[in-house]
Amino acid sequence: MGKNAKIKKLKKKLRKLKARLVAAQTHTHAIAPLAPKTFPDLPVIAGARFAAAKAGIKYADRLDVMLAELQPGTSIAGVFTRSATRSAPVLDCQAKLGSDTSEGAAILVNAGNSNAFTGAAGDGSVDAITSEVARALSIPKNRVYTASTGVIGEPLPHDRIVARIDEMAGTLVPDGLEQAAQAIRTTDTFAKGAKAEVKMGDRTVHIAGIGKGSGMIAPDMATMLVFIFTDAKVAQDDLQSMLSELTETSFNSITVDSDTSTSDTLLLAATGASGVEVKKGNQAFRTALHGVMLDLAHQVVRDGEGATKFVEVRVTGARSDTDARTHALAIANSPLVKTAIAGEDPNWGRVVMAIGKSGAYAERDKLSIRFGDVLVAEDGWVSPQYREEDGADYMKRDELVIAVDLGVGDGTSSVWTCDLTHGYIQINADYRS
Amino acid sequence: MGKNAKIKKLKKKLRKLKARLVAAQTHTHAIAPLAPKTFPDLPVIAGARFAAAKAGIKYADRLDVMLAELQPGTSIAGVFTRSATRSAPVLDCQAKLGSDTSEGAAILVNAGNSNAFTGAAGDGSVDAITSEVARALSIPKNRVYTASTGVIGEPLPHDRIVARIDEMAGTLVPDGLEQAAQAIRTTDTFAKGAKAEVKMGDRTVHIAGIGKGSGMIAPDMATMLVFIFTDAKVAQDDLQSMLSELTETSFNSITVDSDTSTSDTLLLAATGASGVEVKKGNQAFRTALHGVMLDLAHQVVRDGEGATKFVEVRVTGARSDTDARTHALAIANSPLVKTAIAGEDPNWGRVVMAIGKSGAYAERDKLSIRFGDVLVAEDGWVSPQYREEDGADYMKRDELVIAVDLGVGDGTSSVWTCDLTHGYIQINADYRS
Repeated sequence: MGKNAKIKKLKKKLRKLKARLVAAQTHTHAIAPLAPKTFPDLPVIAGARFAAAKAGIKYADRLDVMLAELQPGTSIAGVFTRSATRSAPVLDCQAKLGSDTSEGAAILVNAGNSNAFTGAAGDGSVDAITSEVARALSIPKNRVYTASTGVIGEPLPHDRIVARIDEMAGTLVPDGLEQAAQAIRTTDTFAKGAKAEVKMGDRTVHIAGIGKGSGMIAPDMATMLVFIFTDAKVAQDDLQSMLSELTETSFNSITVDSDTSTSDTLLLAATGASGVEVKKGNQAFRTALHGVMLDLAHQVVRDGEGATKFVEVRVTGARSDTDARTHALAIANSPLVKTAIAGEDPNWGRVVMAIGKSGAYAERDKLSIRFGDVLVAEDGWVSPQYREEDGADYMKRDELVIAVDLGVGDGTSSVWTCDLTHGYIQINADYRS
Repeated sequence: MGKNAKIKKLKKKLRKLKARLVAAQTHTHAIAPLAPKTFPDLPVIAGARFAAAKAGIKYADRLDVMLAELQPGTSIAGVFTRSATRSAPVLDCQAKLGSDTSEGAAILVNAGNSNAFTGAAGDGSVDAITSEVARALSIPKNRVYTASTGVIGEPLPHDRIVARIDEMAGTLVPDGLEQAAQAIRTTDTFAKGAKAEVKMGDRTVHIAGIGKGSGMIAPDMATMLVFIFTDAKVAQDDLQSMLSELTETSFNSITVDSDTSTSDTLLLAATGASGVEVKKGNQAFRTALHGVMLDLAHQVVRDGEGATKFVEVRVTGARSDTDARTHALAIANSPLVKTAIAGEDPNWGRVVMAIGKSGAYAERDKLSIRFGDVLVAEDGWVSPQYREEDGADYMKRDELVIAVDLGVGDGTSSVWTCDLTHGYIQINADYRS
């Protein structure tokens, strides 16, 4: 080989190595490998309009605030973090739930600052924003809901949001949900949306939802904001009880890092504009709504900080559903299980460890463990037909099912989680600085 | 520059980059930065002798098994993992505790395989080992305690251990504790030892202990093996009650990753060879014993997988000690708090989050947070005198105190932990393969 060719070849090697070095050192926030291919084509929800703006709260030159306007008569239900240190916007929303639905309503959400642990100033910020939205849309202040996500403990520069409210009020459009989904992202690597429709006789009811959240994700709930809209007509109490019940097997069944945010907010608005009345026992609607909720919940896990594997932990045969859930969460939250998954290591011993420490009932010699269809352990030991290659092959997949049967009852629970990788450390060791 | 020079230069660059890439990718297991400078000079404990050997259980050509021989009359107390899937050696030890102390006793420990979740074969391995030790030392089998640490769910090749027992029985020495500490290491980056002496009148009682454990460390208990020896004469019941009580504020107050092993074993042997009788209320002895236990517990945290910071979480002003402990553990186990510490980020908002999610009582506006002496937050907000530079400066230290006063009572608790780093992921994503 000539010297020129050699130089060329070496330079090429150098470029490749540099790229790998950068990747190894920075773990740049590329789109999560588990992300859906595209954002769904969300239906228009009659009775709801959306706008987004660049308020410069923390991020420069990107959408960071969204406004939803809801027609008079819209029922609004909510589920919130149970944190003892919840944020000012959460406390404000909780106080407003169940208020008279005859007037119009609004939801304003910002990214970049969570207005949490901001003392009396935090309440002042909420008041300033809700007053201004109420004025701009001519609705009562107690029908204006807000949510904030981002850094905790720094004063929310609410003036920057207030300065954008007239602009947003003037640009509200029925098909603005995707933009709204973009605006509420923080460390999310993709915008999250989900939809469903339900035929009811000759009419169709639509459901569309957006969400954000990738760290501090755990039951009760997560650093998660989710806003779901439907044109169904649902009484306030029915809407609330459906939402609360369906949250248990969707948003409260996902976990990224066992941490619970001070700001988690899930709001469901039913405008009633379709004219189709839905009662809380309506199975078709419940199924569709749960589908949207579970889809958004799974997307949150798929965007788990640093996640490379999407994992269902499926526990059966427990003494009760509660026991099953305790075991499932112990497995899903175990750093040792999560790092083994990251390393594509079929380390079922760590699953045994997690079951053992969960505190719920288990008998060592009655439980069985499967990775997908691969029976790994039973009768208190590795299964005689198990071959390590089978386990190792299975672990290479992007989507995994870890199934545990405890053999002591009928209790079941599924929990969804992701692996624990260098990416998680990278994102969270550097988040604020 | 000539082409030869250019090629030389490019090749040099390539070598450098390759080295950096390897460093970025491998995080080799160097000695933990928080390790003590040296192994302590442990005193001889009259009535106890030690040996170690290379059994080749998992590791090639290193000490991986230890034997302790204890003179007739030695009392032995123990505390074990509360895991529902605890290992065969743990179950065997628990069954033997409190047996007649008139005969000699022994402790045999191996590293590399935990003999956990190994079904009936696991019990067989324990039986084979304890029978052989009993024969070699002419003591009853129910006075032979074993502990195993390492991979879960693989059959223990006990023949390799049995083959070394005569060799160890023939090489027992009074000053063999340091070698024993070497033999029981798994992912530990340094051997752990601690000592104390207590003057009682004109006589001195000695305490010496060794331990291992760096991952799966959490209360109740840890992937932790600890063996403490004293020449004090203590009745079996007194020894057990002291050990159980002092465990709460030592080994049960440390956490690395919230995971609990199936094998945790803490044994305390009192040979009585000093002739000094100690009752359980003896404060001087309790203090000395607790000191040894806390020292070993801290060393385990200092060797936490990937740890670069040693952190005390000190909670005061809780409604009860139990509440304080719940808050302290929530903070110490939070992946978001632990990654912030790794990133030297004074992110007290995550501390607020952890308090909020713990489930124990807190009032947002009454709690205060200090990083060392730096008052960070009070009255539900960042303290007016707090400057981010002060927090950031403090976080650069190797040893940190995160102090939270809840302002709602007199309950206190301290918990020790470490940060969560790339090193932890590296070690645990690759452990078994």
